[in-house]
Amino acid sequence: MIHALLLAAAAPAAAPAAPQAAPAAVLPSDPSPADWVAISDDQLLVFTLASGKTVTVRLADGYAPVHVANIRKLAAARWWDAGTSVYRLQDNYVAQWGDATEKKPLAAGVVANPAPEYDHAGPTAVARLGRRDPYAEWAGYSRDGWPLAGIGKREWLPHCYGMVGVGRDMAPSTGSGAELYTVIGHGPRALDRNIAVVGRVIDGIEWLSSLPRGTGDLGFYMTPAEYSPIVSARLASELPPATRPHFQYRATSNPRFAAWIVSRENRSPPFFTVPAGGADICNAMPPVRRTP
Amino acid sequence: MIHALLLAAAAPAAAPAAPQAAPAAVLPSDPSPADWVAISDDQLLVFTLASGKTVTVRLADGYAPVHVANIRKLAAARWWDAGTSVYRLQDNYVAQWGDATEKKPLAAGVVANPAPEYDHAGPTAVARLGRRDPYAEWAGYSRDGWPLAGIGKREWLPHCYGMVGVGRDMAPSTGSGAELYTVIGHGPRALDRNIAVVGRVIDGIEWLSSLPRGTGDLGFYMTPAEYSPIVSARLASELPPATRPHFQYRATSNPRFAAWIVSRENRSPPFFTVPAGGADICNAMPPVRRTP
Repeated sequence: MIHALLLAAAAPAAAPAAPQAAPAAVLPSDPSPADWVAISDDQLLVFTLASGKTVTVRLADGYAPVHVANIRKLAAARWWDAGTSVYRLQDNYVAQWGDATEKKPLAAGVVANPAPEYDHAGPTAVARLGRRDPYAEWAGYSRDGWPLAGIGKREWLPHCYGMVGVGRDMAPSTGSGAELYTVIGHGPRALDRNIAVVGRVIDGIEWLSSLPRGTGDLGFYMTPAEYSPIVSARLASELPPATRPHFQYRATSNPRFAAWIVSRENRSPPFFTVPAGGADICNAMPPVRRTP
Repeated sequence: MIHALLLAAAAPAAAPAAPQAAPAAVLPSDPSPADWVAISDDQLLVFTLASGKTVTVRLADGYAPVHVANIRKLAAARWWDAGTSVYRLQDNYVAQWGDATEKKPLAAGVVANPAPEYDHAGPTAVARLGRRDPYAEWAGYSRDGWPLAGIGKREWLPHCYGMVGVGRDMAPSTGSGAELYTVIGHGPRALDRNIAVVGRVIDGIEWLSSLPRGTGDLGFYMTPAEYSPIVSARLASELPPATRPHFQYRATSNPRFAAWIVSRENRSPPFFTVPAGGADICNAMPPVRRTP
């Protein structure tokens, strides 16, 4: 049974929306039902590709409010519904989407280059990893299920797999939010504090990460025929109630989550025989799931 | 020009086999021509998929000698040339290949379950990153272009994007080397010291990372029709000289490489405005390139 068991215990426990088998016994790291908290409909932005597949982003309105307000205005104006696509796939780096021609006017009220929203006052984390982060003094979790990293009195959302950032030109440009990317490889943490992070793909990232890699510089597709068109972007709050997706984050300020952190830092037998004693934030992303 | 410049300075400098533009000026971190060293033909294993695309692995014979000897015997016996495939694609984790039926007999002389080769005596690193690794006391580089991490008198090859490991059953199984995987997401470092790492994909990983994700548990494909057949595996030394691929690693024991590490830890303007002051080993992988 090599292949059925292979790496079984190593499977990421925090995979969004993965079906969860009933545990044989309640572990200290298991959430209680009340630990799952609904994500509000206006924090969920659903992109639909021409293939019909959807990619759902949880918006980090508390962390990059002006950029997220732009993104909501673009969705409300149906800006993404025509002439936009996934136009860049750089292996072990990012998938990027928006208007490849760069000629489409922004929607009314969208700020072209907001002030930087790369970090904010802190620390506000309610739980932390045990070891120092290589890119910060600490890494941990917000009360409402976001990963954080921080130095001194500042903290920020780290560039981990699935996190969504705002494409921009050279500094001092910060980008409007019309061009977005998500991480599809090892977390490029050098981007932390240099780009506005506005959310996290919590469902459907495989429809981006499995696209063919672009063969131009930096993974841009060489021809428009290679683009994956986007047909719409909607906040869940804009969708008919019957078709709205529902997701939950796991609360982080309780002893069960503290035990979960320790379990991520020390993976257990029978598959693992040597626990690491530590983890980095991108391998211990806060759990999110589709509402059962 | 948003899209042409976007994230330009953030592009991984260590991408295998990327074409390199002539620099405007020689930087302290630029290699001298003598810093590029040929990788021997019997360290290069070329897998060819039914699509005709090739994936080239540099074998880490110095780190997992019995497992690598197995892999060479399997290649010599043409074991991978029939009945093998890429049969697992788990998003943000691994692509895995071999015999999905688990019924194909191993080649003569192959050790079914060698003793663990998960770490070895050290430290032997000739260069190190500036900050502590979350999974080890330090991370750095071997003289011959491998990434390393270590604790006390032991060191090992870390699970970074593109590193190749040996699929195994539950411990004490170590796997034969007939079933291999490579990392296609954030480095799952919890696997360090729990699995034999036998190499690194140095060319063609995009033909694995862009495959459709499996929809079964742990990313296994649900039906054989979804498998990507493998048609051959050859050491470069087994190929006719005219068709052999040639690759080089960058020497790591010199001031230019030390400057390169600092440049990875502190990315520079105009794109980056805030240097991190540190990096993790998977974001600073030792450079490898196709021989010009």
